Amino acid sequence: MGGDSLDDSARGKGQSHRLQRQHELAGGPLGIFGDDAKKHDLSIREVMNGIMEALQTNHPDLSFRHRPDISKREINDKLASIDSSLGQVMFVQKASIKPDGGIIEAKDKSGNYRVVLVSESKHQGNDVKKIRAGIKQGKNKDKDLMVAGNAIERVHKNIQELRNYLLDEIHFPYVVFLQGSNFATKTFFVDSPDGRKVEISHDAGNLNRIDRVTASSYGMEINQSYCRNVFVELDDHMQMLQAASLYFQSDSWTAGDMAEILWDVASTSLDILSGELYA
Amino acid sequence: MGGDSLDDSARGKGQSHRLQRQHELAGGPLGIFGDDAKKHDLSIREVMNGIMEALQTNHPDLSFRHRPDISKREINDKLASIDSSLGQVMFVQKASIKPDGGIIEAKDKSGNYRVVLVSESKHQGNDVKKIRAGIKQGKNKDKDLMVAGNAIERVHKNIQELRNYLLDEIHFPYVVFLQGSNFATKTFFVDSPDGRKVEISHDAGNLNRIDRVTASSYGMEINQSYCRNVFVELDDHMQMLQAASLYFQSDSWTAGDMAEILWDVASTSLDILSGELYA
Repeated sequence: MGGDSLDDSARGKGQSHRLQRQHELAGGPLGIFGDDAKKHDLSIREVMNGIMEALQTNHPDLSFRHRPDISKREINDKLASIDSSLGQVMFVQKASIKPDGGIIEAKDKSGNYRVVLVSESKHQGNDVKKIRAGIKQGKNKDKDLMVAGNAIERVHKNIQELRNYLLDEIHFPYVVFLQGSNFATKTFFVDSPDGRKVEISHDAGNLNRIDRVTASSYGMEINQSYCRNVFVELDDHMQMLQAASLYFQSDSWTAGDMAEILWDVASTSLDILSGELYA
Repeated sequence: MGGDSLDDSARGKGQSHRLQRQHELAGGPLGIFGDDAKKHDLSIREVMNGIMEALQTNHPDLSFRHRPDISKREINDKLASIDSSLGQVMFVQKASIKPDGGIIEAKDKSGNYRVVLVSESKHQGNDVKKIRAGIKQGKNKDKDLMVAGNAIERVHKNIQELRNYLLDEIHFPYVVFLQGSNFATKTFFVDSPDGRKVEISHDAGNLNRIDRVTASSYGMEINQSYCRNVFVELDDHMQMLQAASLYFQSDSWTAGDMAEILWDVASTSLDILSGELYA
C-alpha cells in the first residue's frame, strides 16, 4: 500500500519511544530479521517464525515451541481444572483454534508449556488501493468507497478462547494487527488517477470498524501492549481483565514493526513468568 | 422447519422441569402471549415486546424500558467509571450495539436503569429445509449439505460489549437462541423427496458450529441459564465469570419456548437486583 504519514501517528507516544530505542539497538535481539526483511510484507506466520528463532537464540536456557493451533479439548481441560462446571461441552472432537500467527510457548520448571505469545493479522478495507488504481466500487461501480463489512467482528472469538485458556495466568499476550482502510486512525487523502483527492475518514460510520474490535481491550487506548493483566476493584472483589493488544493502521504493518511489538510482548510474558520458568 | 424429535433432548433436564412447571401455570405471567402466539414463529423482538408487557403487568411497582440498542459511549462511560484507563477509545461517535431482541431495563431506587434482559436470535444452516424440498447445494448443485460457514463467530462481539457494560454487576442476563442445521445437538435424519434419509450430524466438522460459540459460556453446559455470575477461585483472587446463556437446536425456537426462557432470566435478574430496585 505504500508509506503514508500514518505510521507514527498511529502509535502511542510510548510506543514511538520504544521503537526508536529498538532501532538504536543495532544487532539487537531482532537482528535475526535483517534490515531488508524488516521492511518487507512478511506474513504474520513468517514474522512469528523469526520471533521464535530470536527467542531461542536469546534464551538458550529455555525450551520453546511454536504451534499453529490449540485444541478445544485443551482449552476445555484447562477450564475444567479451574472449576468442574466449566469446559464441559464439545461437539466436534477435533475442534481447534488457529490464530494466524500461531502460539509460542516456553516450558516451565514443572515441564508445562506456558503461552508467551499469540498473534493474528487481519485486513479489512481495500479502498486505498482501489482509489489509487482508479477502480470504482459498489453495485454500480460508481463509488470511491466500499461500505465496510463486519467480518472483523469474528476476531473476538479466538481472543475469547485464549482468555479461557489463560484464565489462571496473570498475563495475556494476545496481539492483533489490523490493517486496511477500515482501520484508519486518522483521516487522510488518497490521490485518484483522475486528479481528485479522495478522503479516507477515520470517524465515518460507513468506513471505520475499529469500534467493532475494541470491546476485547475494554476500550483502552489502541496501539499499546496489554500483556500484563489489569486488575480493577469492584464492589466486593478484584476482577482481572484480560485485554488483547490491538494494533490498528490503514497501511499494512511491516515485518519490522510487527516483530518489535511481538518481541516486546513475548519479553513481557517471560518477565512475568520468570519465577516459574527457571529452576 | 417442522417439528423434529430434538425439542426435548436439546434441553437440559432442569430446563425440561422448568418448562413443565410453566406449562402448568395456566394464565401465568406469560399468559400475555396466548396459546396460539406461543406456537408461532415470532421474531425475538416480538417475543421481547411480550416479555416487556408481562414484566410491566407482573411488576406494576417497577418502571421498565425496552430499547433496541445501547451506545458505545454509554459502555465506555461505564468502563471509565470503573477504571480511568478503560473506555477511552471511540472512532465513530454514533457507534452503538444492537442485540436483535433489544435490551430491557428496570429503574432502580437511585433512578438508574439496570439491565434485566438482553437477547439475540441467530440462524445458521438451511440444510433441513433444502433436503426436504429436494434442493441440492454447493457449487455444482450436487450436495445434500452445505459446508457450514463461520459468520456465527460474530456473536461474541455483542456479548463482549455487554460484559463490559455489566462489569460492575453480578448478573449477566444475556440470552442467545441459535437455530439451524449448524446447531443440531443430536444427529437426526431428514426425508428427501427421492426417498433417501439424509443425516444431519451433530458432531461433524463440516456442519456443526456450536463449538464456535461456547467460548462465551466458558464451555459450560448449553441450553441452560447463567444469569447469575459464577465466581471461581484463582491463585490470589476470586474471578467473576460472565457467561452468556446459549440455547441451541436445529429446529426454530418457538415463541413459547423463547418466552419461557427469557422470562426465567429476567426474573432471576430482578431477584438479584431486588435489594437495589425497591426503596
